[in-house]
Amino acid sequence: MQYPLPIAKVIESYMKLPGIGEKTATRLAFYTLGMPESAVQDFAKSLADLQQKLRFCSICGNITETDPCAICRDASRNQNQILVVEQPKDIMAFEEMGEYNGLYHVLNGVLSPMDGVSVEDINIKSLITRLQESDVNEVIIALNSTPEGEATTMYISRLIKPAGIKVTRLASGLAVGSDIEYADSLTLKRAVTGRTEL
Amino acid sequence: MQYPLPIAKVIESYMKLPGIGEKTATRLAFYTLGMPESAVQDFAKSLADLQQKLRFCSICGNITETDPCAICRDASRNQNQILVVEQPKDIMAFEEMGEYNGLYHVLNGVLSPMDGVSVEDINIKSLITRLQESDVNEVIIALNSTPEGEATTMYISRLIKPAGIKVTRLASGLAVGSDIEYADSLTLKRAVTGRTEL
Repeated sequence: MQYPLPIAKVIESYMKLPGIGEKTATRLAFYTLGMPESAVQDFAKSLADLQQKLRFCSICGNITETDPCAICRDASRNQNQILVVEQPKDIMAFEEMGEYNGLYHVLNGVLSPMDGVSVEDINIKSLITRLQESDVNEVIIALNSTPEGEATTMYISRLIKPAGIKVTRLASGLAVGSDIEYADSLTLKRAVTGRTEL
Repeated sequence: MQYPLPIAKVIESYMKLPGIGEKTATRLAFYTLGMPESAVQDFAKSLADLQQKLRFCSICGNITETDPCAICRDASRNQNQILVVEQPKDIMAFEEMGEYNGLYHVLNGVLSPMDGVSVEDINIKSLITRLQESDVNEVIIALNSTPEGEATTMYISRLIKPAGIKVTRLASGLAVGSDIEYADSLTLKRAVTGRTEL
């Protein structure tokens, strides 16, 4: 025996999401069945619209409804700094911090030969073009400290430096509030190397 | 700063599902954004159709596309037994077992005065009507052994017994493959009380 088709289809769709197996998908599908009809219709509409209404900003690569995106259009931002991130979600973290007022560039990935991601697959070319056509004097590279992130940071740095543009990266060290006792040795090593004068 | 509206709406919808907070919803929304367009459109359509195409069987209360449901329409099934369950999902478990060939009755809930669920809110009345109009000679009550499930079992049993219909419940005891060492005392007590002769 199988579930009626309408609910089987919803279960199947939920199962395509990461970390959701058959049991959880079934639970979510039955929960959805019991939700108010308007909420489920809104859910369906939001999914149908998602990819239709969003595009990548032709300047910075961020996801946006309007091209160029709100940040690229904002003349009040510091036009001399570009912060390079891996994905649109990362921009959110910096905007919530509230201390950065420059521009962004979203690579939408990092170099990863193992996964077949090469220079042409991420937004590096558009970053170079952008630097040639603008007054940017500092590029801050803010990629995750995975092996792929490190390699991509080095690659971009070597590409940009010859043009006389300052290239920086985020400081590595202990997270605020963390215990030295539990810090891994690589983090501790970076914290010592990058120590600052009081 | 906020995410563009199309993705914010999807995040909001995912957050309405049980066990999914803002972080997970954001991760799912960005994953959805990267899914093939056809898969996302299918997902949207399956949700839009879910409540439109499904209804409750007017006889047994199961969810179905056609009324009466496939089980109620199946004349080859034993028309003398009705197995009472809490929710449509439970029917699936019995059908997968493959040993039961009677009919079902889905309460769609259990009595729970604390949550404001009284006799009128679950399918008890329709069960009584059904018993009066048919040749059913055994009602098997298969509700979860929660306090609410126990109370509902007792309530239905007292209601039906006077009509001379046999009322049974599932055996309580040790799960097959489980260790006596780790069994809780209530389960062990039930297993001893319900011991069977070899």
